Amino acid sequence: MLFHVRMDVAIPRDLDPTERAERMATEKARALELQRSGKWVHIWRVVGAYSNVSIFDVESADELHEILWNLPLFPFMTVAVTALTEHPSALSANA
Amino acid sequence: MLFHVRMDVAIPRDLDPTERAERMATEKARALELQRSGKWVHIWRVVGAYSNVSIFDVESADELHEILWNLPLFPFMTVAVTALTEHPSALSANA
Amino acid sequence: MLFHVRMDVAIPRDLDPTERAERMATEKARALELQRSGKWVHIWRVVGAYSNVSIFDVESADELHEILWNLPLFPFMTVAVTALTEHPSALSANA
Amino acid sequence: MLFHVRMDVAIPRDLDPTERAERMATEKARALELQRSGKWVHIWRVVGAYSNVSIFDVESADELHEILWNLPLFPFMTVAVTALTEHPSALSANA
Amino acid sequence: MLFHVRMDVAIPRDLDPTERAERMATEKARALELQRSGKWVHIWRVVGAYSNVSIFDVESADELHEILWNLPLFPFMTVAVTALTEHPSALSANA
Amino acid sequence: MLFHVRMDVAIPRDLDPTERAERMATEKARALELQRSGKWVHIWRVVGAYSNVSIFDVESADELHEILWNLPLFPFMTVAVTALTEHPSALSANA
Amino acid sequence: MLFHVRMDVAIPRDLDPTERAERMATEKARALELQRSGKWVHIWRVVGAYSNVSIFDVESADELHEILWNLPLFPFMTVAVTALTEHPSALSANA
Amino acid sequence: MLFHVRMDVAIPRDLDPTERAERMATEKARALELQRSGKWVHIWRVVGAYSNVSIFDVESADELHEILWNLPLFPFMTVAVTALTEHPSALSANA
Amino acid sequence: MLFHVRMDVAIPRDLDPTERAERMATEKARALELQRSGKWVHIWRVVGAYSNVSIFDVESADELHEILWNLPLFPFMTVAVTALTEHPSALSANA
Amino acid sequence: MLFHVRMDVAIPRDLDPTERAERMATEKARALELQRSGKWVHIWRVVGAYSNVSIFDVESADELHEILWNLPLFPFMTVAVTALTEHPSALSANA
Repeated sequence: MLFHVRMDVAIPRDLDPTERAERMATEKARALELQRSGKWVHIWRVVGAYSNVSIFDVESADELHEILWNLPLFPFMTVAVTALTEHPSALSANA
Repeated sequence: MLFHVRMDVAIPRDLDPTERAERMATEKARALELQRSGKWVHIWRVVGAYSNVSIFDVESADELHEILWNLPLFPFMTVAVTALTEHPSALSANA
Repeated sequence: MLFHVRMDVAIPRDLDPTERAERMATEKARALELQRSGKWVHIWRVVGAYSNVSIFDVESADELHEILWNLPLFPFMTVAVTALTEHPSALSANA
Repeated sequence: MLFHVRMDVAIPRDLDPTERAERMATEKARALELQRSGKWVHIWRVVGAYSNVSIFDVESADELHEILWNLPLFPFMTVAVTALTEHPSALSANA
Repeated sequence: MLFHVRMDVAIPRDLDPTERAERMATEKARALELQRSGKWVHIWRVVGAYSNVSIFDVESADELHEILWNLPLFPFMTVAVTALTEHPSALSANA
Repeated sequence: MLFHVRMDVAIPRDLDPTERAERMATEKARALELQRSGKWVHIWRVVGAYSNVSIFDVESADELHEILWNLPLFPFMTVAVTALTEHPSALSANA
Repeated sequence: MLFHVRMDVAIPRDLDPTERAERMATEKARALELQRSGKWVHIWRVVGAYSNVSIFDVESADELHEILWNLPLFPFMTVAVTALTEHPSALSANA
Repeated sequence: MLFHVRMDVAIPRDLDPTERAERMATEKARALELQRSGKWVHIWRVVGAYSNVSIFDVESADELHEILWNLPLFPFMTVAVTALTEHPSALSANA
Repeated sequence: MLFHVRMDVAIPRDLDPTERAERMATEKARALELQRSGKWVHIWRVVGAYSNVSIFDVESADELHEILWNLPLFPFMTVAVTALTEHPSALSANA
Repeated sequence: MLFHVRMDVAIPRDLDPTERAERMATEKARALELQRSGKWVHIWRVVGAYSNVSIFDVESADELHEILWNLPLFPFMTVAVTALTEHPSALSANA
């Protein structure tokens, strides 16, 4: 099941530098791991913003929440979730 | 170059049925053609809306405008364009 | 899988009265049928508005889209979909 | 009487950890107690957010305010209240 | 139970003049009747707008919906409902 | 002259507790005094919010500003003022 | 008593040309008359818009409503009213 | 004096085709003439929209209003005007 | 040239009291000076807000920016600038 | 390729004065350098705001992101990017 997720990140300026570095490193590791597992299908940077637009392919909305909630930078994100479905004009629907 | 495009469609109720059918058919044909050519990389339907979220891979912003402006349903769309770039946590950036 | 859906209805004043009556009757029949099948779990009227707040329990986002898209009044609705998951303070999570 | 309530929670980062833990624990205990009493009929987590959508069944708007105002996390919530009534297409209205 | 209601009225220009006159007359009659019965406690005109701010004192949210939904001008109104409760600084709470 | 005023209160967490208590006590005393004088005609609590909806009956907009500006909690309020006039469907206009 | 009023005008394209011309002429005559009487103290055109920003000096909010409601173009206006008072840094307050 | 202007165009579908063609042709002629005269310094198309972003260099705000108000498509435009001034980091300010 | 300016002021609570007093005093002195020079034509307080609505009569947009940017409270203001021109229904345009 | 960028700057009051001065100086140097290289084609100050409106001419959206992301004041900016293309009424399109 596909979900479109936009994440806008705002890390507080007074976050401890070590914690900041750790969270950013584990966030990246987690993102790579989820991409390799096929759950986090796409991630793009929005030009001119500390934001990404992502596509997730998960078993359920519950699984998506589990993933998002446990991202190391989640406490500093505004997250917008949009459910997607196959478009009737997509190649996949017209094979 | 990647762009994220959301299109919200609102076809007027009083549009001539033949014109409507023609526009919808050519819109679909055009979407399939652009997908086959690799310009229109992804198209998903937004659940519960006459809307799509799409990813375009074009030579330039000019080319994207040319494509969007000439879609048969363009006169009935609200279009939001967001420029994208590679995310530092994407697999492609960490190969 | 649970989704929260708000539907705001605005039937055009110039809709043919017969079509209007038919759409409203089939909408109601469809809503009852979907409730009986367990897909449309709750439907409440928003006080002072031609709107409802509903909870759907479906197999997938695709199924939800299929249901919403085919509602007889869908062309006259603004629909907002929010994915839900179990709350850690819900009774069901603390049995 | 039914009310739809959305609560968006934003606990300040500098809240004393003990106070934070206590408030969260008593919030959860209070939510369970109110669910058992039948006042807090439903509580769902919004996917990708520190938010819930809830349905309350109370004697009056006064009672609802009393409940919300005294939630341990109330000072850190944005709360949106919507009055509900039976929908004419609900099963309960067509028994 | 008290509710604060704002009604913004926009009667379509092409409404049949007789229907318009009838709806406005019955709307006024209904408003007076509800005021006399004590349900519609206050009604004020917003300066510079075809709008009112009203206070209703009803048995329940259901009763409020019944009243609003059946107002002759309801189809041409945007209605915003806010539940109220006694303020701890009101005279009534400090008698 | 009648004005509709909504006040949303957000007292900073780090306000000195004594100052906080004093401001709240004098705010309440001032609200009661103004109600007794007939200036502050109504005050209601908005359900689920640290907000009130009030009606003031003052000599002039200047007097209203004087009252609001000098409320002890004014520095922590967002205030929305709406001028009111008699509604043609009010009982008072149809005596 | 001073009020700041912004009026955004949108005359429907299908308004009968004679009615349109009449309304515009009487609107202008009324505006001039109210300026001469000292009620409509200032009127400025907003650059790039069919809008004005005006200052009214009236006996009461009731009088302002009477004036606005009876403007010939009122049915085609969106009107925003803001109550004003003397600024402590105005020359008049520091004579 | 420089002004930034965004124009969003929405030509009504039922506009007489001859009038439409004439307005579009004279709009273009006028835009070219104003560019040649140095008043309309820049005009760019917004990608994916029937909109432009423009820079005007005029004697005064009055002159800008005169230009905009008399554009053939002005009645079908939403116009947003922003006054500009030299930026302290511009080359021109650091020659 | 006339500009309409709204300034909403929010002085931080933790601003040093001496700096605060100085800024407020010089702000007032500057406002009076600019009014006497005829640049700052009008200044009104918005009822119920730490805000003013002002009219400036300046040589150019550059001069307006210079004035606003150098106001002692500018760092704590949100400023909205609207260019004005003579209204065709103003007395001045119909002398 | 042209992009329209609006940057709204909000430097935190508690930023170390030396860091502040350094960031502002390097920001200016970087802006001048990018203007000289032809990447940052225009930069204008918005009247009454700590904001600029800029036009960039870059090889790609990626290059634009690289430029914006590395501006010394980027962490304190809200940035809005709009892709532009040649307007059919521009002189360049009608040579």
